[in-house]
Amino acid sequence: MKFTAGQIAELLNGKVEGNEEAIVRNVSKIEEGKPETLTFLANSKYNHYIYTTKAEVVIVNDSFVAEKEINSTLIRVPNAYEALAQLLEMYEQSQPQKTGIEQPSFVSDSASLGDFVYVGAFAYIGDNVTIGDNVKIYPQAYIGDNVKIGDNTTVYSGVKVYKNCAIGASCTIHAGAVIGSDGFGFAPNTNNEYKKVAQIGNVILHDHVEIGANTTVDRATMGSTVIEKGVKLDNLIQIAHNVEVGENTVIAAQTGIAGSTKLGKDCMIGGQVGIAGHINLANGTKAGAQTGISKTIKKEDTVLFGSPHLEIGDFHRSYVVFRRLPQLKAQLDELIKKSKA
Amino acid sequence: MKFTAGQIAELLNGKVEGNEEAIVRNVSKIEEGKPETLTFLANSKYNHYIYTTKAEVVIVNDSFVAEKEINSTLIRVPNAYEALAQLLEMYEQSQPQKTGIEQPSFVSDSASLGDFVYVGAFAYIGDNVTIGDNVKIYPQAYIGDNVKIGDNTTVYSGVKVYKNCAIGASCTIHAGAVIGSDGFGFAPNTNNEYKKVAQIGNVILHDHVEIGANTTVDRATMGSTVIEKGVKLDNLIQIAHNVEVGENTVIAAQTGIAGSTKLGKDCMIGGQVGIAGHINLANGTKAGAQTGISKTIKKEDTVLFGSPHLEIGDFHRSYVVFRRLPQLKAQLDELIKKSKA
Amino acid sequence: MKFTAGQIAELLNGKVEGNEEAIVRNVSKIEEGKPETLTFLANSKYNHYIYTTKAEVVIVNDSFVAEKEINSTLIRVPNAYEALAQLLEMYEQSQPQKTGIEQPSFVSDSASLGDFVYVGAFAYIGDNVTIGDNVKIYPQAYIGDNVKIGDNTTVYSGVKVYKNCAIGASCTIHAGAVIGSDGFGFAPNTNNEYKKVAQIGNVILHDHVEIGANTTVDRATMGSTVIEKGVKLDNLIQIAHNVEVGENTVIAAQTGIAGSTKLGKDCMIGGQVGIAGHINLANGTKAGAQTGISKTIKKEDTVLFGSPHLEIGDFHRSYVVFRRLPQLKAQLDELIKKSKA
Repeated sequence: MKFTAGQIAELLNGKVEGNEEAIVRNVSKIEEGKPETLTFLANSKYNHYIYTTKAEVVIVNDSFVAEKEINSTLIRVPNAYEALAQLLEMYEQSQPQKTGIEQPSFVSDSASLGDFVYVGAFAYIGDNVTIGDNVKIYPQAYIGDNVKIGDNTTVYSGVKVYKNCAIGASCTIHAGAVIGSDGFGFAPNTNNEYKKVAQIGNVILHDHVEIGANTTVDRATMGSTVIEKGVKLDNLIQIAHNVEVGENTVIAAQTGIAGSTKLGKDCMIGGQVGIAGHINLANGTKAGAQTGISKTIKKEDTVLFGSPHLEIGDFHRSYVVFRRLPQLKAQLDELIKKSKA
Repeated sequence: MKFTAGQIAELLNGKVEGNEEAIVRNVSKIEEGKPETLTFLANSKYNHYIYTTKAEVVIVNDSFVAEKEINSTLIRVPNAYEALAQLLEMYEQSQPQKTGIEQPSFVSDSASLGDFVYVGAFAYIGDNVTIGDNVKIYPQAYIGDNVKIGDNTTVYSGVKVYKNCAIGASCTIHAGAVIGSDGFGFAPNTNNEYKKVAQIGNVILHDHVEIGANTTVDRATMGSTVIEKGVKLDNLIQIAHNVEVGENTVIAAQTGIAGSTKLGKDCMIGGQVGIAGHINLANGTKAGAQTGISKTIKKEDTVLFGSPHLEIGDFHRSYVVFRRLPQLKAQLDELIKKSKA
Repeated sequence: MKFTAGQIAELLNGKVEGNEEAIVRNVSKIEEGKPETLTFLANSKYNHYIYTTKAEVVIVNDSFVAEKEINSTLIRVPNAYEALAQLLEMYEQSQPQKTGIEQPSFVSDSASLGDFVYVGAFAYIGDNVTIGDNVKIYPQAYIGDNVKIGDNTTVYSGVKVYKNCAIGASCTIHAGAVIGSDGFGFAPNTNNEYKKVAQIGNVILHDHVEIGANTTVDRATMGSTVIEKGVKLDNLIQIAHNVEVGENTVIAAQTGIAGSTKLGKDCMIGGQVGIAGHINLANGTKAGAQTGISKTIKKEDTVLFGSPHLEIGDFHRSYVVFRRLPQLKAQLDELIKKSKA
């Protein structure tokens, strides 16, 4: 590829500061910028790199104020990260796209495939499956009986979708993710043995959902485990049976949500968070990494931290003292000694 | 399907309260109950839904006492959850079952398959494998050389069983689980490099074991990693080399057990728990979610919480004070000021 | 197999104490030692077993001093664990090795395979893939377009490598691992919706890297996610986009590293550790299990514990007091009462 700063600015509706004719042939990270590459600056932690980067062109926020001279040409846009996203998407879409049915693959006679689908070799498409237009099913993916997949969805290699689940349009499911495995339900008997409770429900992923690599979403005991529109789940996340995750909620890697819990809309959950079963989180709940959420959160936009969770400010105020507990104890012991004297 | 309340009560040995002729055609959750559906009430947290549910029939515990009028027909049984499990199982067994050998699949000439097995397309069955009767091997599963699988076991799509492992009868292994990967053993040399220690042992799963989706069970360095009869492991669990998990122990999702640790019988381990290597947990040990168990637990039925673990009551008593540490510090500072004055 | 103690000592350059003609036909763990087996003692926690083990021959460190009579024959070596590793490797290499191209498999016409490779049934090798000599690709593995794999690397069943990634020589990638899935990058818009940021970078694994079962390594947004030479990753680990892990760093199971973070060389990270994004860890950083590392660590060889992390000594000194907080509070309340009186 080869573009000038001026051409890119036009694509992005941005303003060039510097050489309109500066040429970029590739992209790079700002801290590793090379000549003839384009980079971006969105996180202020990386501001200092802009004065030394060798990148030819840097996309920056309109609000960015330089404190020293900058050698690179700048393109100013309202939101540098969004502008980058736009460019990367154009690049990605210019790449060759998979299409057609590779052999050997297994497609049930009763399955129905839309137009322009890709079915990779060794993919398995079960009975009565319905697959929309422009869907990509990568090699070795498994689509169980009666599953429905909406238009423009991509299912990467090795994804396993159990029978009766429903996947919306414009979803992306990454390699190794498992959708619809049995919920963890067992009825104990008097010998301390556990009898499996058959899990006859399913999983519903609504449109624009992204599921990370090796993430697992269990089917409901009865009814559905539901991932609403626009939800983004990172890798290695566990979603238990009958959980519901509200619209546009994002969850970072290795978080687990126990059975029957409901998350509201627009929640932001950090990595390795644990959320107890049978509770509700209000819209806009946020949780820092490794938080353990043990109870229903009723107030919207609450920010949680710690395990078991506290409001984040409360946690940090307590943790500051936790770090000084040995001194605090020494002070107390001293006082006790004094008071006895 | 179509049943009357009376027919279901007969199946369950239960007692109808209300309309014996009430008809159910499907199941639902109590909070989303619909006409002509059957639901259940086992967890008292959901008691209030029984007065408003639209479900036609509700299975309840004999001990349930109504506080208001209920529109639904009730079926009283000694244990509503067990009764539900029984019904769901009947339903599940009434569904079409997979059977036969789909093509293309790979079955070694030296492998031996029992009667009524299912081998899905793209499944791989290695040399000298022995598979019992009524076993289901779903598409894209991998059964390495010399593996044995007992009768009535189900291995879902994409499960990987490394060579020489042994799986009992009536086990269920969910999609993406890995049985028999190498233990994490490396011998450091003087250059800080690590030389791999070959892992020549195996994994033994005894009968009635359930392994969750994407859970990993490493093979032993020497000897066997052992999962005893009736153990239930949820999704995304890590079992390291040479671990032993005792009979009827249940472990929730994303828990990890480090090498050579032994868990007793009837333990109940929450989600995201970490258990250190080379320790033992007594029979009946319980641990809350996110607990970090760092030392051997000798007393049976101990309940643990926190990281590093304490007995649960001790943890909560300390955590109550932790939450008030800023006030406690202020009080102490005040006293010190006073005592100086 | 059948060896005498004398023969094994010669292989290991060790010294026999006892019967040079003692025969071993198998290996065992010291606590389960059986006649005609070889075992080893490296971890002093297991010292007491040496006086009762039934193993014929025990490999011990030169520095081991017996406190009672030992029935087994000893072989003394400078490092028992290393010696064991050497023996197990010889054993492993004496086992039958997979080779050749099993059918059906999918190898693109434009892919290039080295000598003596194994390609298992249902493995998928995409366009322009380059695979070195002696590489083993197990059944149902997926090697995306343009991937390069160095000599002597083993890729186990069901591994998924996305397009454009590079894997070094002498690497081992365990079943279900995913290399090169999209980083978790989304640009929020004003409706609280998230627009996917295309992830156009790749993953580079250098030589002698081991990746555990079901571990996920995301591709970079731009540039590369880099795992340096000699790094060992356990199972179910999450490595986010643009992370760099330095040479010979080892990381235990279920740890997660957020985006753009850089770990130095020779770090040792315990299980279930969480490491925040956009930070750096100095060479030799160590972290106990479940630690939450929230900030850059500049001092080499720092040992961390707790969440959020403290230096390990500081954490334990505080935690000792945490355990006694209820008493501490009672003492304080008593003092306050006194001071008011």
